[in-house]
Amino acid sequence: MQNFKHHIPTKVYFGQGALSNLQEALAPYGKKLLLAYGGGSVKKSGLYDEIMTVLRQEAYEVTELSGIDPNPRIESVEEGVRLCREKNIEVILAVGGGSTIDCAKAVAAGVFYEGDLWDMVSQGGSRGPFLPLAAVLTLSATGSEFDPMAVISNLKTREKKGARFDYPAVSICDPSLSFTVPPLQTASGSADIMSHIMEDYFAREMDCDFSEELAETILRSVMKNCPVALKEPDNYQARANLMLNSSLACSGIPSYGKDFSGWAVHAMEHELSAFYDITHGVGLAILTPRWLRHILAKDPSITPRLVRFAEKVFGLSGDDKNLLARQGIDALEAYFVSTGLPMGLEDLGIGREHFEDMAEHVCRSGRLARAYVPLGKEDVIAIFEACLSAPA
Amino acid sequence: MQNFKHHIPTKVYFGQGALSNLQEALAPYGKKLLLAYGGGSVKKSGLYDEIMTVLRQEAYEVTELSGIDPNPRIESVEEGVRLCREKNIEVILAVGGGSTIDCAKAVAAGVFYEGDLWDMVSQGGSRGPFLPLAAVLTLSATGSEFDPMAVISNLKTREKKGARFDYPAVSICDPSLSFTVPPLQTASGSADIMSHIMEDYFAREMDCDFSEELAETILRSVMKNCPVALKEPDNYQARANLMLNSSLACSGIPSYGKDFSGWAVHAMEHELSAFYDITHGVGLAILTPRWLRHILAKDPSITPRLVRFAEKVFGLSGDDKNLLARQGIDALEAYFVSTGLPMGLEDLGIGREHFEDMAEHVCRSGRLARAYVPLGKEDVIAIFEACLSAPA
Repeated sequence: MQNFKHHIPTKVYFGQGALSNLQEALAPYGKKLLLAYGGGSVKKSGLYDEIMTVLRQEAYEVTELSGIDPNPRIESVEEGVRLCREKNIEVILAVGGGSTIDCAKAVAAGVFYEGDLWDMVSQGGSRGPFLPLAAVLTLSATGSEFDPMAVISNLKTREKKGARFDYPAVSICDPSLSFTVPPLQTASGSADIMSHIMEDYFAREMDCDFSEELAETILRSVMKNCPVALKEPDNYQARANLMLNSSLACSGIPSYGKDFSGWAVHAMEHELSAFYDITHGVGLAILTPRWLRHILAKDPSITPRLVRFAEKVFGLSGDDKNLLARQGIDALEAYFVSTGLPMGLEDLGIGREHFEDMAEHVCRSGRLARAYVPLGKEDVIAIFEACLSAPA
Repeated sequence: MQNFKHHIPTKVYFGQGALSNLQEALAPYGKKLLLAYGGGSVKKSGLYDEIMTVLRQEAYEVTELSGIDPNPRIESVEEGVRLCREKNIEVILAVGGGSTIDCAKAVAAGVFYEGDLWDMVSQGGSRGPFLPLAAVLTLSATGSEFDPMAVISNLKTREKKGARFDYPAVSICDPSLSFTVPPLQTASGSADIMSHIMEDYFAREMDCDFSEELAETILRSVMKNCPVALKEPDNYQARANLMLNSSLACSGIPSYGKDFSGWAVHAMEHELSAFYDITHGVGLAILTPRWLRHILAKDPSITPRLVRFAEKVFGLSGDDKNLLARQGIDALEAYFVSTGLPMGLEDLGIGREHFEDMAEHVCRSGRLARAYVPLGKEDVIAIFEACLSAPA
């Protein structure tokens, strides 16, 4: 078991009506507040009005940063930083999913960053000062409500970079706020949760009972509850299990005791969404089974890992371990298909024309060369090729 | 799923050699330090010298509070508070197991408490100011390294009370520091970990996948690793899994989403150890199977919960659900027997002479009347009676 350091200072209010804690959650901070959100959904749902009522009652000076996109742009970060400096903002309240919270993190650090903000992101973030950040979560997916990470896109340079900042001081997680999330976002958010688990689950070290079983628990739970949420969008138990899984999956906790795995699928997906601005979870769902087939073929010594995956996550069994390992991957792919996700790049209008560029770019950092099964440029191209058509 | 609030600010350094982080862990605090520890084991193992070397290098002014007993006494708390006030202590470093850390928590709060310290404990603790507390853990059992609770005994009044204070600021958890823990303490510490899980696992609410499965994971992991640690005291993986389980089990996390369960076994055990000063984990191991048999007989509607326990924790199966429920309890008892724990009160020289007093005292707070299966005085006496003889 590898050593680890645990320190997650975020306070979480979880449950139905958790928004009633907003006043308490914000109480330790100043009254000059930046309200960050995305498109119209928080207005349509009435959440915006509900929050503004509390903020007005409590005499907050509210400045708004709206229109934050999925795959949030560096331009939103720049605008947020400009507003924070102009209005002497003391606390940021991010309302939405991972994109909004990610953008707010980059703003919270960017305020104190001297220099170009895209440099800050591409250099891996900032561990310097950080404005207090509160989040109201509306979508179960990225886990940004309980981690220090942010992913920011630069469409000009066709780059999408993950960066480390600081944790939200407080997150309000009310599963009923995710009732209105449409099917595609529910399914792709769930795929994102599963990917956060699988990135670390597939690693050499398998001797930490807690990490192994927590990972399997979350995978099973997502695959149980996502289909329920798709059929009954306002099923509280299903939404609650998904939201709790979301916060845990990207917290780092499921990788405690494990070695470096490389997060290869996220790295490859960031290329796809930087080039084509696709939904992150969709890209992950398309890539994961193809990546697993590729690395299993490349390095059959990982068969026992895939066998455990097939057995514990899908309840499969059989004497032919090679077959069992492949059946687990097939079951994963079939699950993604069943949730209605587009499962081929061609379904998204993506061809092979940039595979070479993307593969070269993703290999540049050297991270994939140290991944669970090391990958080179040719591997990445082969995985992208396998992603072109949806499974028959 | 019930609402919950999560906030565990403790920083944890986990792993072999984690003590090398001591300097970093203490850096944010002042140099006037109270070093709290128990008996001679930290001196015998060389840990005391190792820590003193670091403290001397860093020019700490060290005051010692030693001789903290298992079932730590209010007298140690009083002595610690006196020393802290006299020496203007700025940080406490607790080195040992749960008893030492518990005592240090009561001291850290007691310094700021005006009034009688036993009153502070018996009123349920203090949420007021708290000296920074660092812990170096040497025993996997209570989880005090990752929770705000402390249990303090008053032998004069024959009372043992749980109280809530604040979290350690930082805990150093090196599983190899637990290599020297003797078999009885390894087994009883493991029983303590399991009890922390079982107190919340047996509850009405069963719809939070994460809590249910985390609980089952920890129970299986303890029963896998404790026997290994008993046979091979310096097996790192076994000790590491036990230590991680210990921190998680009492963190409150395995009860997220669940309703109030009452912690009935701990309440009854506190009577036993207040009257007889027995090892906490031994009392819990003796009580738990008898408590489960009693509540199953009293309220057969809990059968499905016991069936899941038998299936998921012990891998048992069968069509006769009533039988299966009982077999799970038998398997738990057999496991405790196999770890060498004394499993009857008579083995500890305890007879029925105080059952009446203890039962009356434990029912006084009214907590047992609101437990998973509500218990009255007669129930408690019957459970104590069933604990007299070890299983045949």
